Amino acid sequence: MIVHGSGSILRLVPAGGRPIVTLTTDFGTRDYYVAAMKAVLVRKCPEVRIIDVTHEVPRHDILCGSITLERAADGFPPGTVHLAVVDPGVGTDRRILVTEINGQMVVCPDNGLITWAWRRLGPGNAHELVWRPPAASSTFHGRDVMAPAAAMLACGRPLREIAGPIQDPVLLDVRPTDQKPRIIHIDTFGNATTNMDCEAVLLLATRSFSVHNHKIGTLRRTYADVPPGEPLALIGSSGLLEIAVRDGSAARQLRLKVGDDVFVE
Amino acid sequence: MIVHGSGSILRLVPAGGRPIVTLTTDFGTRDYYVAAMKAVLVRKCPEVRIIDVTHEVPRHDILCGSITLERAADGFPPGTVHLAVVDPGVGTDRRILVTEINGQMVVCPDNGLITWAWRRLGPGNAHELVWRPPAASSTFHGRDVMAPAAAMLACGRPLREIAGPIQDPVLLDVRPTDQKPRIIHIDTFGNATTNMDCEAVLLLATRSFSVHNHKIGTLRRTYADVPPGEPLALIGSSGLLEIAVRDGSAARQLRLKVGDDVFVE
Amino acid sequence: MIVHGSGSILRLVPAGGRPIVTLTTDFGTRDYYVAAMKAVLVRKCPEVRIIDVTHEVPRHDILCGSITLERAADGFPPGTVHLAVVDPGVGTDRRILVTEINGQMVVCPDNGLITWAWRRLGPGNAHELVWRPPAASSTFHGRDVMAPAAAMLACGRPLREIAGPIQDPVLLDVRPTDQKPRIIHIDTFGNATTNMDCEAVLLLATRSFSVHNHKIGTLRRTYADVPPGEPLALIGSSGLLEIAVRDGSAARQLRLKVGDDVFVE
Repeated sequence: MIVHGSGSILRLVPAGGRPIVTLTTDFGTRDYYVAAMKAVLVRKCPEVRIIDVTHEVPRHDILCGSITLERAADGFPPGTVHLAVVDPGVGTDRRILVTEINGQMVVCPDNGLITWAWRRLGPGNAHELVWRPPAASSTFHGRDVMAPAAAMLACGRPLREIAGPIQDPVLLDVRPTDQKPRIIHIDTFGNATTNMDCEAVLLLATRSFSVHNHKIGTLRRTYADVPPGEPLALIGSSGLLEIAVRDGSAARQLRLKVGDDVFVE
Repeated sequence: MIVHGSGSILRLVPAGGRPIVTLTTDFGTRDYYVAAMKAVLVRKCPEVRIIDVTHEVPRHDILCGSITLERAADGFPPGTVHLAVVDPGVGTDRRILVTEINGQMVVCPDNGLITWAWRRLGPGNAHELVWRPPAASSTFHGRDVMAPAAAMLACGRPLREIAGPIQDPVLLDVRPTDQKPRIIHIDTFGNATTNMDCEAVLLLATRSFSVHNHKIGTLRRTYADVPPGEPLALIGSSGLLEIAVRDGSAARQLRLKVGDDVFVE
Repeated sequence: MIVHGSGSILRLVPAGGRPIVTLTTDFGTRDYYVAAMKAVLVRKCPEVRIIDVTHEVPRHDILCGSITLERAADGFPPGTVHLAVVDPGVGTDRRILVTEINGQMVVCPDNGLITWAWRRLGPGNAHELVWRPPAASSTFHGRDVMAPAAAMLACGRPLREIAGPIQDPVLLDVRPTDQKPRIIHIDTFGNATTNMDCEAVLLLATRSFSVHNHKIGTLRRTYADVPPGEPLALIGSSGLLEIAVRDGSAARQLRLKVGDDVFVE
């Protein structure tokens, strides 16, 4: 491993591999917008390796983007740079954040996107990006400001040269809980993830869960532990309490949505 | 080429290139699930090259996944590892399969996903994955078991170290035919692929095809051989008899679905 | 930089980086078709770097594909090869085009796909691809003809060995204007791009815009310059006049479609 000093913590760049930049956006994949960021990344850091997380965060849904970004910051190796753009405030004076967290870097608007990574993997070291390009559009800072910054960091430029430390990143009011879980994310299959993590869930292992007056029962290990079409509570692959329906959609069948309470009985 | 012994057949790794892993799943692209597998692949095999086949196999549609996977195993170069995850039985004791076929490797659940590659490009050498990680979720073996196995194989670990030969992989009841074709796949444009391959079709070249009492006529060479909006029979790009509508959707216009018979008159 | 002679202009290949091929198609991402082209690219040019622009051009929509392709040819570094396949005429005798433009190469059917890059970044040097594979399907020239050609060019084969100059590429009747803008593209967010570029727009900075009897007002800098839900005119990230609605869809709210006139008052 090659070690660079970078402001506050050490940053690790894989010795054998190429620098990795992941992308998480609400741009969709129909237009040129995602490729526009990739073009900047390969121009500014030719050896970069680009991995899409998703471009289908619902438009302007910062909470959803935040939960997806946490998964990326949990899974990828040290030294990865995560570029996350869900940016309703583009063109305003909202700050752009560079956060050192879990041995990785996150570049994103300072609008709460960092929240779930901060809560589960942090706290991190937050910085405000002060670097700006000679010219930038007013509508696409993902391409003009954040992608160049991510490329510079991926190529080893010290963070302190482009950003200064701050103490007050914007954080949404959502936290891991050990008491009163609520639904924070619904995936494409209709599985509902809560903000209760597995340590807290395991302490409740003999208790029953319910949601919207539907009794879900006690904790199960996997989908196949109930008959097809039946709801269950289990620890999902992100290590959080999840409400699911075997071979079906819990969101549709139980009419679940983000923010709904899950009850422990 | 560097040649490794690997149980039963020889495995070829491209000398100049990087190892390739392709991905075929029913995960969709909205959530973190696909990137979770990619994170494992780059952690365990940093030089790996990852190529998405599709993540839009309809949920739990093993036949559709199987037909897509066969195309990948037909097209990619020797030494490619294909990771295919359509896995309704996750968390049960269904086996995980590693198959040597067409000079390549396929890692997938043993639920029939290997069928179409086995029928058209095989038979292959089937193995049961015996390697397991120290800890795995009960809901995401794609990330926790199959992706690490694919990464190990891509990096050159001998198959015999992680899997043992078996004789009875699960195969679906669908086969190439030279007599009575039926529709086995409908693509995004509404073209309907059958299980009759081009050698068999060419022997029938003067005969007429029909489906659902719609006369389709004799074999054509390409879409432009009929007027816009008209149906035709042709040999599709996968080398199989296909029913299409020029500039339109045969599935919608002729109300075709998987399993429908195509008649030769 | 390594410099190759290539017929008419010089082609630049990045010295440190790997050759880049981008993909723009109307294939969708559900089927194997995109991966089929990638399999050819990695077979014929193992060091190639593949970047998806989009596969969601509406089926057979050559104008939309053309506008997306121009963005790619504007953004990527010199030496990039762009492979664009929106090809309703596959299997007919329509030509296949290789165009040198903006220090890059574009491989596409000669059906107007090159138009917008030609108008904004060109004119380029147009060539007809004369190379053909020993065998090709009649339905998938993207895989059988254009992908191998793109791979050969990416790996440094001189253009003159596979194509000959032509003077009359097919061009659609759409041009940049400084007088009477009309809508040429609507993006996934409902923003409507016109064919008036920023230099022309800035000369009109004190004038008002309207569309379908909706008054849009004078030029704004960014979305946040109007209240949520209000329409505005601005210079979009592609450097063209754009009609948008803050946090909403101009296309839906103002019932805009491609071809609509925008009035300057």
